[in-house]
Amino acid sequence: MDEIRLFQKRMSDNNIDAYIISSNDYHMSEYVNDFFKSIQYLTGFTGSVATLIITLDKAYLWVDERNYVQALQQVIDTNIEIINQGHLDSITTIDFLKKFYDKEINKTLGFDGKLISATRINKLISELPERVKINSNTDIINLMWSKRPELPFSLIYKLSEYFSGRKYVDKLNDVLNEMKNNNADMHIISTLEDQAWLYNLRGNDIQYNPVFLAYTIITPTSTTLFVDNKKIDLTIEKYLTEINVVIKEYNDFYEYLKTIKNKKILIDLNYSNYEIFQILSTRSNEIINKQNPIINLKSIKNKTEIKNIKNAQKKDGAALTKFMCYLKTNYGKAEMTELNLAEHLEYLRKKNKGFIDLSFKTICAFNEHTTMMNYSPTLESNSKVEGNGILLVDSGGHYMDGSTDITRTFVIGKLNDKLKTQFTAVLKSMIALDQAIFLKGTTGANLDILARESLWKLKIDYGCKTGHGIGYLLSIHEGPNNFHWKDKNSVPIMPGMITTCEPGLYLDKYGIRLENELLCVENDTNDFGTFYSFENITYCPIDVDAIKVSLLTKEEREWLINYHKMVYDNIASLLNDDERQWLQEYIQKM
Amino acid sequence: MDEIRLFQKRMSDNNIDAYIISSNDYHMSEYVNDFFKSIQYLTGFTGSVATLIITLDKAYLWVDERNYVQALQQVIDTNIEIINQGHLDSITTIDFLKKFYDKEINKTLGFDGKLISATRINKLISELPERVKINSNTDIINLMWSKRPELPFSLIYKLSEYFSGRKYVDKLNDVLNEMKNNNADMHIISTLEDQAWLYNLRGNDIQYNPVFLAYTIITPTSTTLFVDNKKIDLTIEKYLTEINVVIKEYNDFYEYLKTIKNKKILIDLNYSNYEIFQILSTRSNEIINKQNPIINLKSIKNKTEIKNIKNAQKKDGAALTKFMCYLKTNYGKAEMTELNLAEHLEYLRKKNKGFIDLSFKTICAFNEHTTMMNYSPTLESNSKVEGNGILLVDSGGHYMDGSTDITRTFVIGKLNDKLKTQFTAVLKSMIALDQAIFLKGTTGANLDILARESLWKLKIDYGCKTGHGIGYLLSIHEGPNNFHWKDKNSVPIMPGMITTCEPGLYLDKYGIRLENELLCVENDTNDFGTFYSFENITYCPIDVDAIKVSLLTKEEREWLINYHKMVYDNIASLLNDDERQWLQEYIQKM
Repeated sequence: MDEIRLFQKRMSDNNIDAYIISSNDYHMSEYVNDFFKSIQYLTGFTGSVATLIITLDKAYLWVDERNYVQALQQVIDTNIEIINQGHLDSITTIDFLKKFYDKEINKTLGFDGKLISATRINKLISELPERVKINSNTDIINLMWSKRPELPFSLIYKLSEYFSGRKYVDKLNDVLNEMKNNNADMHIISTLEDQAWLYNLRGNDIQYNPVFLAYTIITPTSTTLFVDNKKIDLTIEKYLTEINVVIKEYNDFYEYLKTIKNKKILIDLNYSNYEIFQILSTRSNEIINKQNPIINLKSIKNKTEIKNIKNAQKKDGAALTKFMCYLKTNYGKAEMTELNLAEHLEYLRKKNKGFIDLSFKTICAFNEHTTMMNYSPTLESNSKVEGNGILLVDSGGHYMDGSTDITRTFVIGKLNDKLKTQFTAVLKSMIALDQAIFLKGTTGANLDILARESLWKLKIDYGCKTGHGIGYLLSIHEGPNNFHWKDKNSVPIMPGMITTCEPGLYLDKYGIRLENELLCVENDTNDFGTFYSFENITYCPIDVDAIKVSLLTKEEREWLINYHKMVYDNIASLLNDDERQWLQEYIQKM
Repeated sequence: MDEIRLFQKRMSDNNIDAYIISSNDYHMSEYVNDFFKSIQYLTGFTGSVATLIITLDKAYLWVDERNYVQALQQVIDTNIEIINQGHLDSITTIDFLKKFYDKEINKTLGFDGKLISATRINKLISELPERVKINSNTDIINLMWSKRPELPFSLIYKLSEYFSGRKYVDKLNDVLNEMKNNNADMHIISTLEDQAWLYNLRGNDIQYNPVFLAYTIITPTSTTLFVDNKKIDLTIEKYLTEINVVIKEYNDFYEYLKTIKNKKILIDLNYSNYEIFQILSTRSNEIINKQNPIINLKSIKNKTEIKNIKNAQKKDGAALTKFMCYLKTNYGKAEMTELNLAEHLEYLRKKNKGFIDLSFKTICAFNEHTTMMNYSPTLESNSKVEGNGILLVDSGGHYMDGSTDITRTFVIGKLNDKLKTQFTAVLKSMIALDQAIFLKGTTGANLDILARESLWKLKIDYGCKTGHGIGYLLSIHEGPNNFHWKDKNSVPIMPGMITTCEPGLYLDKYGIRLENELLCVENDTNDFGTFYSFENITYCPIDVDAIKVSLLTKEEREWLINYHKMVYDNIASLLNDDERQWLQEYIQKM
């Protein structure tokens, strides 16, 4: 790869000693359009979360725990050092740069201010020596990336109230209330999911993420949407006009920002780029840096959304159950590969009514590929699925009635006793969290250990969250809810939140994961307070061939029997006769 | 009670509109000498943690969850409103005062600056309107309390290295290192436990708390101890001189403070009174407000301490086992009351070698008295222990080789099925936490739900921590370690920390609690990290007559059998023949 060398040459031309590239887009999205995949262009690494720091003689790539193994395989340039940022003893990007700029000869730090969050840069600047000069305007990538993809283009469509459950004007009022509570006379949103949610609009600008590139400025009397006009057809234009949204051009946003003065602006600097902060903060505005109120608002699904999501989950669970039936009845007969199985599953999902897209690239991993948390088969890596082992399938769909995320690990051939013991431990993890009853106020950090304990007792850990929130036809990873013992800002799990429960293990030779989605519901109120619990809204059997039943307690066995009964009751009508009969027999194996 | 009226008169004379009295002493101790029991003098409430706010026409007493029922019983003055500060919907003292001073007519707030922490007052002042005048020097109590007890007096004694495991000079070096890390040239300590720990000295100035009133000022070149000279005999004086500690009079501390100027002072404002802060902050000193480093240092027990503590626990467990044998074999024959049982237990403890004192007032509660978390029998309340029911005994001892805290709930007569189910749930709680295996970094807030979940499944909660740290011949409640899901500043549980595990339930008619102490130990290290677990260091059987065995899992039954076997192995040699035989038979009932 000569791209890094070329990049370093350009840095040198611009007197930049170190340059930071993050995996973000202008909107601090988790997943980005190809236009923004500079790290992939420079290093070959395709993972979604990374930071690349290039110095004049070397490059350093920080990746998270989930993608570390993948990075080691994909990055072949030996001049790029890969750092697992999940490890406690790994240096952080900030400490790295502090050390780097400790040398008096290093003077200038470069990055594109539109591509890194304001919080991150502000923190970095506050820790670097004052003499370090900041160059936030030299977009080196653009200078050198000749075949750079275009900015995305997709038509915007509307989610009717039948699907969204709540009108724009009501959502806007909630936001205006929060602005009032914070004494703000302006609110600027650049995160794409939050805007899509607010307007009840969707697009297709990022693969698997039905959003559209936009910025929004809200004042008590006006809402302005900055969006590529060509994405808006007459219906959408009429709708936006009716709800009094002013449409301006996407590309005019930063010029418009420069006209804002003397305002009290509510803005979430964690999810706004540094350029926005720079422009606003140098024009006598007061920055009220708080979490974007929509993050909490959209995490509590309304009744309509919940009804719809359950419907989507049944269709989606039925597709995976059909896949499981195919796998179990055709194994050893049909030729199976990771790729053709993933395609078959996609085919089954696509037949579902209201299907829009996969909610993320299907993870279909056999044996050693299961060691990577996020492996998706390619033509080069594609494995035959044969002999003995395990097949891990993590997949989901976007439907008009909601998005899904589900993982099953299936037995192929025969499973040895150790693997069964470990699979059973993962199942016990999932059951323990599923069965939790907890007082109002209990956070994901409080709850997490219920899932983790059965694996910790085997001295095994998974270096990621146990689960994440889920968007409604939005990003498949959505905050603020999650299950993670390490999360210092963990929020209480509230009724209406949907969070995945996906414990797993990732060893040298294989990985196992199970994933259901848990809807938090009210359970009971008495003198001790209000208790919540979870309703399982994922409908697909768990591979009983992988379970060592003797390790389950009486309660766990009952959970599994009831779960399978519940799955059958909810999806039987969506299966054909053969599949239904197979399912009936299969779940009676317990 | 006319004391409140008299107090209000004095407030009026001094133009004070509201006056705050907290349950602290000058050293922010949890338990205090009688000299400081102003709240008890004014209201009759004997609990250890409370805040009293007196306005010109009313009084308000904030008590914590554990003492709420007790406060309702003890406070008979109807002009005093009792507020349970454990309830989410209760107003906080700060919000109360904010509302109070919202009225323009209320102008002056009074309190004794030596009796409330600097953090608390600073926060309060920052939230009150600026026009509110602060009067922190009018000690009204002293003006009116004619029979106020004297400041305490007890001789100071030394803990040899055989008991403490670490010399003063080594402890001092740890503190000096922390000062250096914080760029401080002075450190002021006013907490009594921390000074006792540092010097390896003990006293008896507070009932059940073997500490002595003192202040300490450390600089890189000198240590000064402010203490009542009469408490120091020649041996201690010689020891202090040898280790280069300068002794000054306790009463000269505040005058000395006024001479400190232009220093960078490390001080923990959470545990320093407002007067100290006031003096220092008005004299060009730089205040480095950080947690007192000794809090962490003393929480990790050293090898010698652990060896000694286990020894103390065995003696102490044997005393409670003898008590249990007496109870089980003499019930229905001897006349038993809460008081005579508590005395019998104290008698058994006192016979142990190295016994110094009870570590707190024995809680010995029968039936309805068990609804109070902290009930100790008095001549007036003393109940006969007869018929059917439960006896809750929470007690402990201070020994030269450490302090203990243990709770058992015993069956008296016959127990109904519901009570057995609930007792079993409490036992399951205790086992779940005891059996935890957890990664380094796991906090008490992460772990707590393991204990709570079996009670939450019955829709029952206890409104307190599951457990607290334990001092070594110091306070029985010691930070920073605890188990509490609500604790936002929860610290990782580390090897060497000892934390109680005391789940329970407190219903309308009865309460049940069990309490063992858990020593955190290293368990294993592998690619996933370092795992810790607990070693149970409390040695007394659990009443098997109260257990519904069918509700226990196989693992829980095994835990109980092994636990009882372990108890027997550790204490059999400390019992007489009859007791030993009784124990052997008793634990075989499982």
